[in-house]
Amino acid sequence: VLAVTILGNNSAIPAFDRHPTAQVVTLDDHLFLIDCGEGTQTQMNKYKIRRSRINHIFISHLHGDHYFGLIGLVTSMGLLGRTQDLNLYGPGRLIDIFNLQLQVADTNLSFKLIFHPLENEGILVKENRYQVSCFRVFHRIECWGFIFRQIRPPRRVNADNARLAGIPAAFYDHLKWGEDYETQDGRHITNVSVTDPAPKPKSYAYSADTMYNPEVALKVKDVDMLYHETTYLKDLEERATKRYHCTTVQAAAIAKAAEVKQLLIGHFSSKYERLDDFEKETREVFPNSYLALEGVSYIVQ
Amino acid sequence: VLAVTILGNNSAIPAFDRHPTAQVVTLDDHLFLIDCGEGTQTQMNKYKIRRSRINHIFISHLHGDHYFGLIGLVTSMGLLGRTQDLNLYGPGRLIDIFNLQLQVADTNLSFKLIFHPLENEGILVKENRYQVSCFRVFHRIECWGFIFRQIRPPRRVNADNARLAGIPAAFYDHLKWGEDYETQDGRHITNVSVTDPAPKPKSYAYSADTMYNPEVALKVKDVDMLYHETTYLKDLEERATKRYHCTTVQAAAIAKAAEVKQLLIGHFSSKYERLDDFEKETREVFPNSYLALEGVSYIVQ
Repeated sequence: VLAVTILGNNSAIPAFDRHPTAQVVTLDDHLFLIDCGEGTQTQMNKYKIRRSRINHIFISHLHGDHYFGLIGLVTSMGLLGRTQDLNLYGPGRLIDIFNLQLQVADTNLSFKLIFHPLENEGILVKENRYQVSCFRVFHRIECWGFIFRQIRPPRRVNADNARLAGIPAAFYDHLKWGEDYETQDGRHITNVSVTDPAPKPKSYAYSADTMYNPEVALKVKDVDMLYHETTYLKDLEERATKRYHCTTVQAAAIAKAAEVKQLLIGHFSSKYERLDDFEKETREVFPNSYLALEGVSYIVQ
Repeated sequence: VLAVTILGNNSAIPAFDRHPTAQVVTLDDHLFLIDCGEGTQTQMNKYKIRRSRINHIFISHLHGDHYFGLIGLVTSMGLLGRTQDLNLYGPGRLIDIFNLQLQVADTNLSFKLIFHPLENEGILVKENRYQVSCFRVFHRIECWGFIFRQIRPPRRVNADNARLAGIPAAFYDHLKWGEDYETQDGRHITNVSVTDPAPKPKSYAYSADTMYNPEVALKVKDVDMLYHETTYLKDLEERATKRYHCTTVQAAAIAKAAEVKQLLIGHFSSKYERLDDFEKETREVFPNSYLALEGVSYIVQ
């Protein structure tokens, strides 16, 4: 399964009980945190996110509403006795702030924090079952998006058929990756006769804070679900551009051009109390659009 | 009036809906913020604290649960268009962290932030009606307590009597400060005949995070209300000492030795879900003790 859980959907100033940006991506058994606005650790408690399962944290850029909660989350992990390594990805200066804050507190973490400064577009994490890559977006300061892709999962062994064909369970792992089987008496068992096709791998792109730029559509082309910011409604396009942000219809245009299946919108300006119009305006251009609501998990279909 | 409103009463890790340390002191029309754990700006929204009335922020020390919310609060003040000066008092390194965070975000505040590094014990702010001073406490890293004192308020003019005596309203300010009045026809009006005594000035001391040390009692001697940390119950005295914190009975002993009128306790360890025993144990030694509860304002009597 690939899903994203929203911990915060607001821009800049917390307002109307909305929190600054933070999202948890679930990829099978793994959790990944994207951005970490102030209060993220409290939101994790509220929504029962098991922080021990997070081994990778991605920070898009160094505006406070995307990372002020990071130091609190990470030092709390230390106070709770975490021992496994934690990988942190973000703009290079992030680690300077982090180290200074640890130093003045005379704090040593109980685990190893491995910092990976973001420098080039491309793959950041590559495992058997998934990969995470980053791409540049267009904001006032250096800013990065992230794409989470399942790698084509192995085929699924049809245990009944495999047993009937006399294939030992020890060989199932080979079957999953498409191998045929030769029995000891020389019969050839084709892979397709004892396995079912794997589900199509899914992908999720988080395009962070960005002004409207058609290049973003190329960078996230064909992902199943795209999260794109919509800081403003469409009537404030000029303000959006001036502040390196997007409107509803601009985000929808990117989703359309990228031919994604589903669009998730967020990073709503604190000037808006109600969000209905965000969904309405976006759907006029890209019907399969949804508000990123706090506490809700969106499963990538 | 002198009062303190609790925005957070927990130590280290947010737990059981308790937040890290932050308190707002109300002194007549002025608000002062003491410490600013993560989420303080959200707590201010929740409890309707008018941040525009805060012109002085005091940070006791650089452990995260006392200042991780500062950068978020102050940058939000900027985003909301604040123009009046803001005075910040804290250990010297605080401003390095702060400036680095502003720099990486390419942010300029809309107002002047005046940083006052804490270096010597003594008076930090002195106005007609109040003063704030600082004192060192005993923690693992540099740590400061703060005392807020009303300066003896002026006498109160008894308007009826003053009018009968023929004193012009323009002279009332002199009356408040104890002057007598000579009428144009040579009568001498004594001050006490046209004024009532001022209420006794009140004082509140915040002793931050500290291990047990009788010197603290000397530093806060005779204040009306003392806030003292009680991170642990009395059975964990050894752990408290090792971590430079206090137990219930240690805080109560300080209150008793200092001959304060009222003791407020807080900074409860995240290991405790219920707080009843904190109040119980403290009251066994110092009966006039109260839990510092979030959202509650305690008026200094």
